[in-house]
Amino acid sequence: MGDFFFEVIAEDPSTQARAGLLSTPHGMVETPVFMPVGTQGTVKALSPRDLKECGVQIVLSNTYHLYLRPGPELVEKAGGLHRFAGWEGPILTDSGGYQVFSLADLSKVTEEGVTFQSHWDGSFHLFTPEKVIQVEKMLGADIVMPLDRCLPYPSPYEEAKLANELTIKWAQRCKEEMGEGEGQALFGIVQGSTYKELREDCSRRLVEMGFPGYAIGGLSVGEPKSAMYEMLQVVLPHLPVDKPRYLMGVGMPADLVRCVGWGVDMFDCVIPTRNGRNGTLFTWKGKLVVKNAEYASQFVPPDPECGCYTCQNFSRAYLRHLFQAGELLGPRLATLHNIYFFTQLMAQMREAIKEKRFSDWRRNFLSIYEGKDLSSA
Amino acid sequence: MGDFFFEVIAEDPSTQARAGLLSTPHGMVETPVFMPVGTQGTVKALSPRDLKECGVQIVLSNTYHLYLRPGPELVEKAGGLHRFAGWEGPILTDSGGYQVFSLADLSKVTEEGVTFQSHWDGSFHLFTPEKVIQVEKMLGADIVMPLDRCLPYPSPYEEAKLANELTIKWAQRCKEEMGEGEGQALFGIVQGSTYKELREDCSRRLVEMGFPGYAIGGLSVGEPKSAMYEMLQVVLPHLPVDKPRYLMGVGMPADLVRCVGWGVDMFDCVIPTRNGRNGTLFTWKGKLVVKNAEYASQFVPPDPECGCYTCQNFSRAYLRHLFQAGELLGPRLATLHNIYFFTQLMAQMREAIKEKRFSDWRRNFLSIYEGKDLSSA
Repeated sequence: MGDFFFEVIAEDPSTQARAGLLSTPHGMVETPVFMPVGTQGTVKALSPRDLKECGVQIVLSNTYHLYLRPGPELVEKAGGLHRFAGWEGPILTDSGGYQVFSLADLSKVTEEGVTFQSHWDGSFHLFTPEKVIQVEKMLGADIVMPLDRCLPYPSPYEEAKLANELTIKWAQRCKEEMGEGEGQALFGIVQGSTYKELREDCSRRLVEMGFPGYAIGGLSVGEPKSAMYEMLQVVLPHLPVDKPRYLMGVGMPADLVRCVGWGVDMFDCVIPTRNGRNGTLFTWKGKLVVKNAEYASQFVPPDPECGCYTCQNFSRAYLRHLFQAGELLGPRLATLHNIYFFTQLMAQMREAIKEKRFSDWRRNFLSIYEGKDLSSA
Repeated sequence: MGDFFFEVIAEDPSTQARAGLLSTPHGMVETPVFMPVGTQGTVKALSPRDLKECGVQIVLSNTYHLYLRPGPELVEKAGGLHRFAGWEGPILTDSGGYQVFSLADLSKVTEEGVTFQSHWDGSFHLFTPEKVIQVEKMLGADIVMPLDRCLPYPSPYEEAKLANELTIKWAQRCKEEMGEGEGQALFGIVQGSTYKELREDCSRRLVEMGFPGYAIGGLSVGEPKSAMYEMLQVVLPHLPVDKPRYLMGVGMPADLVRCVGWGVDMFDCVIPTRNGRNGTLFTWKGKLVVKNAEYASQFVPPDPECGCYTCQNFSRAYLRHLFQAGELLGPRLATLHNIYFFTQLMAQMREAIKEKRFSDWRRNFLSIYEGKDLSSA
């Protein structure tokens, strides 16, 4: 953990937005940052070279998936995940907690850990907090997440309270298992469903334990957007200003912009990659579903303002043809564009924060992106 | 056609192999050359930038597919196929003759042309020689092929004779429809199934008509390799030495090497792309089926001698993982490698011919590639 530090380098005067620098053993990350998701050790449809060209600074990979396939022993033997996947930049691995509850069959939770059946071969496995950290050590990511208990929305209060207690106990066990860390920083994850009191309690107790960064989990799981925003307002004031704050699984461009304004530093989401594969491209004027018939003979780039390889070389008509014809190049070009758009969005926010004009930038972005003039974000 | 010329620049002293330069409106092509297949206006899984990086000089695209989808009107409106697909180099379009017979349902051949039902929406269409040329003019490739009658193997002599007559009549009609050509060179296609007499007859009559290049069609359609080799020996001596010779649909690396030795200048085949998508990589030591369990923990490049992006950055173990996990990057990295391998293979042959050591090069290549020492190829 000696290689890890975070520094806030600029604060916006009229919002909670801040720009920071996150130092990791595999390089510096400028925040606020969006982390593309490379579930199985590859950001779907893109090569590490594509990611670099798109301005990606850090990628997320999933412990659950890599644990099941190809297995942490193989990744360790390859020299770790960076080497195995040919990505030299920083990596964050989640703990698998979310996947166990959302993907695995027959998961059973006890204080010891969670027993689950693999979603692809039916084999049985036990994830304890200690086991997850051991796996994450073998994968060798720069930032690692502890096993947590992520609940669906809605969840009854009593259940959420129990899950919260478990999450806090597991966080402590993960911290102990991690020890010195050797180049890996373990974040804490705040749970608590949509209950203000539980969120506050979890935040306070994790901060007391002391982590080099804090994630907010259990949001973006189906709750109304207003509930997510409310929980953020509850949690963020409890997190130390000198540590990075990571909102897990978020989100859409307008969400990123709003959450940066409230002081979030890190995000991850499958949206740009998954939507890209389905032919939905994000542009500065909103979403463009390139399969639609209206684009069949539009010989202009998906986003004329965009500098990505896709927009510099191909038309909406060609992209539509690729998707219609089921060609692999379609998902690739659309994903490339989306990832570029997300990194550019974050880069513009960082610049706006440094230049103390984030509030104006946000108003301008949202009014164009959401197609209406918003007096407040 | 004023922009099109071919020149033999070197001949190997002990074989029929020759190196040449083919000038097209979209640039020079060094022969012998392998043309990757971009059926639907994209070489599957690769971008134009990937192709360029792999050393690809010219790509083939399929008139039949582009005619059905997105339609030649759209491609013309986009400014032609080069512009539509973002590929600035030379393009060759086939005539659709082969696809009509192999893919379409209910094709019916008359002297006028061929009526067929689209293989993907069941709609009815008529391809006449004139229609095909009109479509190819709209696509705007540098080299275009005439409608021909390609038979399966085996075919009875009488049927092959009739098909041959039709092919020759259609070639004449295509030539007339093409007229001056305006930047497009129309090749002749020699048919004649596996009948020596028909192959000779077709060659002679096409050469009399006079084309800027000659293709050998109707081979690699299931006949024994010996039959293909025999037909080549029959046809090649009849073709003018100062025109390019294009063997359609071939082939495997060892076939390319042998056929270059007999004086073939151009090739196209789906082998490197299709096999790549299935996880088969070509190496200087033969084929490598990267999905196989034996590669699961081999942390060496697919081909340690290869300079492609894939081999420079990824291991067999990682590629196997990508294929096991169904990740899009797998087919892409494997295709990239295969196309690079094919272009390198052709480049090595060109060098060997220019340096008058093709025979030695061929013996050496085949002994390593086929795993045995061959005294003659």
